[in-house]
Amino acid sequence: MPGREFLQIPGPTNVPDRVLRAMDRPMVDHRGPEFGSFVRGLLPDVARVYGTQGGRIVIFPTSGTGASEAALVNTLAPGDPVLAFDHGHFANLLTRTARNLGLRVDEVSVDWRRPIPAELVEGSLRSEAGRAMRAVLVVHNETSTGVRNDIAAIRRAMDAAGSDALLIVDTVSSLGSTEVRFDEWRVDVAFTGSQKGLMLPPGLGLLCIGARGLAASERGGSPRSFFDWRPVLRENEAGFYPYTPATLTLYGLREALNMLFEEGLPNVHARHRRLAAAVRAAARAWELDVYCLEEGACSDTLTSVVTPERLDSAEVIRIARERFALSLGVGLGKVKGKLFRIGHLGALNELEVLATIGGVEMSLAECGLPIRLGSGAAAAEKALLAREAVTA
Amino acid sequence: MPGREFLQIPGPTNVPDRVLRAMDRPMVDHRGPEFGSFVRGLLPDVARVYGTQGGRIVIFPTSGTGASEAALVNTLAPGDPVLAFDHGHFANLLTRTARNLGLRVDEVSVDWRRPIPAELVEGSLRSEAGRAMRAVLVVHNETSTGVRNDIAAIRRAMDAAGSDALLIVDTVSSLGSTEVRFDEWRVDVAFTGSQKGLMLPPGLGLLCIGARGLAASERGGSPRSFFDWRPVLRENEAGFYPYTPATLTLYGLREALNMLFEEGLPNVHARHRRLAAAVRAAARAWELDVYCLEEGACSDTLTSVVTPERLDSAEVIRIARERFALSLGVGLGKVKGKLFRIGHLGALNELEVLATIGGVEMSLAECGLPIRLGSGAAAAEKALLAREAVTA
Amino acid sequence: MPGREFLQIPGPTNVPDRVLRAMDRPMVDHRGPEFGSFVRGLLPDVARVYGTQGGRIVIFPTSGTGASEAALVNTLAPGDPVLAFDHGHFANLLTRTARNLGLRVDEVSVDWRRPIPAELVEGSLRSEAGRAMRAVLVVHNETSTGVRNDIAAIRRAMDAAGSDALLIVDTVSSLGSTEVRFDEWRVDVAFTGSQKGLMLPPGLGLLCIGARGLAASERGGSPRSFFDWRPVLRENEAGFYPYTPATLTLYGLREALNMLFEEGLPNVHARHRRLAAAVRAAARAWELDVYCLEEGACSDTLTSVVTPERLDSAEVIRIARERFALSLGVGLGKVKGKLFRIGHLGALNELEVLATIGGVEMSLAECGLPIRLGSGAAAAEKALLAREAVTA
Amino acid sequence: MPGREFLQIPGPTNVPDRVLRAMDRPMVDHRGPEFGSFVRGLLPDVARVYGTQGGRIVIFPTSGTGASEAALVNTLAPGDPVLAFDHGHFANLLTRTARNLGLRVDEVSVDWRRPIPAELVEGSLRSEAGRAMRAVLVVHNETSTGVRNDIAAIRRAMDAAGSDALLIVDTVSSLGSTEVRFDEWRVDVAFTGSQKGLMLPPGLGLLCIGARGLAASERGGSPRSFFDWRPVLRENEAGFYPYTPATLTLYGLREALNMLFEEGLPNVHARHRRLAAAVRAAARAWELDVYCLEEGACSDTLTSVVTPERLDSAEVIRIARERFALSLGVGLGKVKGKLFRIGHLGALNELEVLATIGGVEMSLAECGLPIRLGSGAAAAEKALLAREAVTA
Repeated sequence: MPGREFLQIPGPTNVPDRVLRAMDRPMVDHRGPEFGSFVRGLLPDVARVYGTQGGRIVIFPTSGTGASEAALVNTLAPGDPVLAFDHGHFANLLTRTARNLGLRVDEVSVDWRRPIPAELVEGSLRSEAGRAMRAVLVVHNETSTGVRNDIAAIRRAMDAAGSDALLIVDTVSSLGSTEVRFDEWRVDVAFTGSQKGLMLPPGLGLLCIGARGLAASERGGSPRSFFDWRPVLRENEAGFYPYTPATLTLYGLREALNMLFEEGLPNVHARHRRLAAAVRAAARAWELDVYCLEEGACSDTLTSVVTPERLDSAEVIRIARERFALSLGVGLGKVKGKLFRIGHLGALNELEVLATIGGVEMSLAECGLPIRLGSGAAAAEKALLAREAVTA
Repeated sequence: MPGREFLQIPGPTNVPDRVLRAMDRPMVDHRGPEFGSFVRGLLPDVARVYGTQGGRIVIFPTSGTGASEAALVNTLAPGDPVLAFDHGHFANLLTRTARNLGLRVDEVSVDWRRPIPAELVEGSLRSEAGRAMRAVLVVHNETSTGVRNDIAAIRRAMDAAGSDALLIVDTVSSLGSTEVRFDEWRVDVAFTGSQKGLMLPPGLGLLCIGARGLAASERGGSPRSFFDWRPVLRENEAGFYPYTPATLTLYGLREALNMLFEEGLPNVHARHRRLAAAVRAAARAWELDVYCLEEGACSDTLTSVVTPERLDSAEVIRIARERFALSLGVGLGKVKGKLFRIGHLGALNELEVLATIGGVEMSLAECGLPIRLGSGAAAAEKALLAREAVTA
Repeated sequence: MPGREFLQIPGPTNVPDRVLRAMDRPMVDHRGPEFGSFVRGLLPDVARVYGTQGGRIVIFPTSGTGASEAALVNTLAPGDPVLAFDHGHFANLLTRTARNLGLRVDEVSVDWRRPIPAELVEGSLRSEAGRAMRAVLVVHNETSTGVRNDIAAIRRAMDAAGSDALLIVDTVSSLGSTEVRFDEWRVDVAFTGSQKGLMLPPGLGLLCIGARGLAASERGGSPRSFFDWRPVLRENEAGFYPYTPATLTLYGLREALNMLFEEGLPNVHARHRRLAAAVRAAARAWELDVYCLEEGACSDTLTSVVTPERLDSAEVIRIARERFALSLGVGLGKVKGKLFRIGHLGALNELEVLATIGGVEMSLAECGLPIRLGSGAAAAEKALLAREAVTA
Repeated sequence: MPGREFLQIPGPTNVPDRVLRAMDRPMVDHRGPEFGSFVRGLLPDVARVYGTQGGRIVIFPTSGTGASEAALVNTLAPGDPVLAFDHGHFANLLTRTARNLGLRVDEVSVDWRRPIPAELVEGSLRSEAGRAMRAVLVVHNETSTGVRNDIAAIRRAMDAAGSDALLIVDTVSSLGSTEVRFDEWRVDVAFTGSQKGLMLPPGLGLLCIGARGLAASERGGSPRSFFDWRPVLRENEAGFYPYTPATLTLYGLREALNMLFEEGLPNVHARHRRLAAAVRAAARAWELDVYCLEEGACSDTLTSVVTPERLDSAEVIRIARERFALSLGVGLGKVKGKLFRIGHLGALNELEVLATIGGVEMSLAECGLPIRLGSGAAAAEKALLAREAVTA
């Protein structure tokens, strides 16, 4: 297909040319002095994106799933009770990972279309079983639904319940695009993958570890080897790794962080809010439901759009891909076929969003929906210009 | 600025990633055997794009302007009378080049908003001065206006006038995107640059030379050295060059030709027609004039949109660039300030065109024009879907 | 430093330009149909490098260390007794990984300068403890010493002892450069990383799993999640992954395999033998000991050179790096300071080896050793020309 | 062929990865404000390499040959008498270009194996014909022989003869590697191509124009268009060009200049002297003649090695290429078959030179010459270590 394809799944996101070029370089000696100082300069800048002063950063050559395993095996032991939520496909995967590793997960069902209610967290932790919980596992921004949880509120709920459980947060589709305040929210361990807001190819799992997370790993955790972060932290002091790190992707990370800081993290976050508002405006113009029912909890990084009963969302996705070289996200888990997901995170701007909206509305029309062509674009443009005005 | 910029000037065009990567390679020995066979395989494929069986291809490391000089100095001598047309900025440049090189140019004024009338060509050549003409210089697709000339009609006019002048055609912004039928139209010399429909960075001038053009160069021409195509043709027999060729760009050319042939030249041309129709539909929806007044002569590779009297087109361009990272073409020569040009040639698809239209309409709105947001997108989408239906 | 650096550590190796360029590309949808067929075509070609018809390939986004963990947790359960050997730094790391994961490792000490004696393996397995062994863990080509073990002989020893233990082999610094005959040697699980003979950046762990390895994982293994190969094998049927794979590195793998097959695997192996012989000839010319004492067991992919008592090998390495932009491998574990390692695997040719030898001999001279300058080059050139003669 | 090829022709030289990556980027609008300031920053840095304060830089998208044409047509008119020298293949080409353009060239024969004697220049200019000379054309570093002319001495000879001819100097294979002192030597016009000491792909011709060269172009010169530097100088004031410049190569130039300045120009020059000395030492060790007979005039950027009568130098070159992936330069013009040329300019270091020497000596041995293997490497290493000692 001629021209640039539009990859608007909610990750992997589009890797900027600058980042690709930074990775297209001769191999280096990962035990040489240059590499050591490079790594020592890199880690604090990742911490800055996490919004932490004291948190420790550990980067594994793995996926986001691998990073979630690292978060669990370092801090929890087989048999430990943990609280989790049936709140989306990726929340479910976190539960499954925890169970695979021998944790006893109490998985509480909640409405997938709204954020996890803080009072439910508090209630769960106040119960007899709840008081024993060693950790609460939450997804910050659920990539399967586009619902963002209020981590600060969940932390307050934990406090209110008097829980000393660890707060372990999946920031896979938030970090780098939506603000994460690791310190302020008193997160104990957060994790992400490289291929979302950090604008990198997949291949890195990045964790941020607070003092309590660290303490837990030093006194316990599960049997572990590759994902043990203790030797990593030890060798990172000098900028090295106990295994061969994914050097090229780390060089890409350096460039991606440079780009985030050049734009300014607050501007990055504001841009994502602006683009997300435009996408939701388009969905409303098409008279289709956004899956997330609370405007304030709608994700800034992806939007799930519900298709009418008679239309399998996979058909919209197929036409968008085949006719317009536009990749959209499928419905995962129990929402399979019912919604499609528009990713709007990472390296992205206004015109790319308009192209995406144009592609979606032509695809919807081709599926036979009574879409007024141009309506999504009109609504999105209005939203973008209004936001511009506000910002200026 | 985050995300991908939209370079929608009428050239240089967006170089596809595949082409950029093909040029990102270690240097080669341009006198070694591999390079020789590479070049020998390359030249016939350029001829295919020109629509010629017998035409000879010569590639210089130069710009399109340099290629025009090569066309002139090889076939014409100082003092030779040639017929040219004041039909746009690039037609004017061709006249200027010819005059710089000592040719006597009869530059006939024509309406910039319509194609050159064939009867005017015939009339000019029938006059006494006209009968002496050694060449007719025409721009196939005038990049400053978006008006396409009918080369077949001009050739017929030359025949009707009994002229044996050479037909020298600037195909800079047509070749590779709009069909050029070198043999059928009996063009004698055509030239282009690499940075338009061939989807390459600037740096190559490519000529196609017919039998009469070749004969003219063998028996005459101007004093010349670098642009003398005779030694090039001679050394090209074995795949070599009398100077150091721009090797990397030639590797890029190989990949660009591969892409054109994979898509199929007729499909490439149809795509450009489809995208051009969408852009013009958007202009109509904005109630702005397309500069070209004859629908059948409107360029498939760029569209000049006239701004209302009160609005300097440079202001639209400035806002598009600064606010939306969208580059548009300025008005050149006598239409400076009066129009902006949307390039839609080379590696380009539907969604990129929609993004461009969205950017233009937001920019027009920001300039205070009473544009209905989304109107251009709506019109363009309709045009695209209708065309799709026709094609399918 | 100007010019090309020489990275001659025993991995990461030099990534060819073709491979780097294949990875420098826009991100793809790893759940889209193109990616699925890409993966399905890729896996059998990895199997070909392993020398297997029936073995199954699993690729994790991880390091070689991670791959070793995958080999263990899928086939063995905590408490299982396994036989391993104190035969080098990486053999020791494998033992440590196994112990971290709760396996009961019987680590038998052997001479680091010679291959593991087959009769020792047989003897160990015939003992009472030996008869209970569930697995034998061996490093094919010990990267810390340059000693290659005879896996066929070890398998015969296991047979002779009547052991039904699994044979788990680390092929990290052999696969792709030195022949691995997975089927013929009846290996049960082999693993490697991407950054050695496969000429890729670090970031992939690649396993080959035989029928018995597979059966073990289906009926048992350790608690596991990320490194569980069962869901990978399941989703790989359609070319997909249960997590986000390291897509770009997989595209690099495709290109690296193409290069190996274009050269021909037997030629690749012969080239490594030829280059290794040249390096050892140079070491003899310098009157320095090669660490490996049995010529037939000397690694084709790296050579450890012993420095005289009075000279810390780290000093040679420092001078090579600082003065000549040449990276060599340090001594690891108990041979720290006693030897330096020259990597000669992956994308490498005769002249690069001569450059390396020149750099080493100048560095040795600068360290004050009574090296005759040019002696290493002379010996290496003789070896290379002799080999050429034999091959031709 | 596996591994890195060694391109040791005297240009195009190896383009550093940093430079290749700087050119591997999306196209830009060459009429946009960013590009304007980019160009304005670039030109003074080229001047710095030329060793000029007041000289003006003009860059054409062309080859070095094209740049030589620009030097001539801007300053001289058809019929103008100029002095040139039959001193090598590229000197001959310069004469041919001048004649093609209608200049009356007095081509004085000199010994190709020694620099042009200053007294010969003075004598020629003192003759009656000589007093009319409008320009003296000299090649600084003759790429076909490896003989370097003393431009300062030639300028003094011109002064002594009272000539007011322009001094036009070909610095194609010197600039960027060997010091050029444009101001101190009072050169009037110097020119080069991008593909030598500037470490770029071919495609740019770069001129440096002094006050007298500029004056000549303003009051005269030949009929010209593309190569007219006046409009370029005019538009360059704002950072623009009258034609589409070779934008990507200009970005490469920016990075190449950064690299030269990071290393420091005096260090760059010293490095080339050091490497050249090593290559000549190797030739002596092989008991082969260096073509240049005066040690002080031997080029720092290439060395021509004479093969014995019975051995066609093309055979050495063929074997080097086919067996060892090493590209050497052929003998050009009257020395065809008699010598091969080793390029040692641009991005190059000690170990790459040793690799080259190793490849040459193995090729010579394979041609049946009684070369002592390792002798060249020994001599080169001694030379390199001695120089290191001197420098330190």
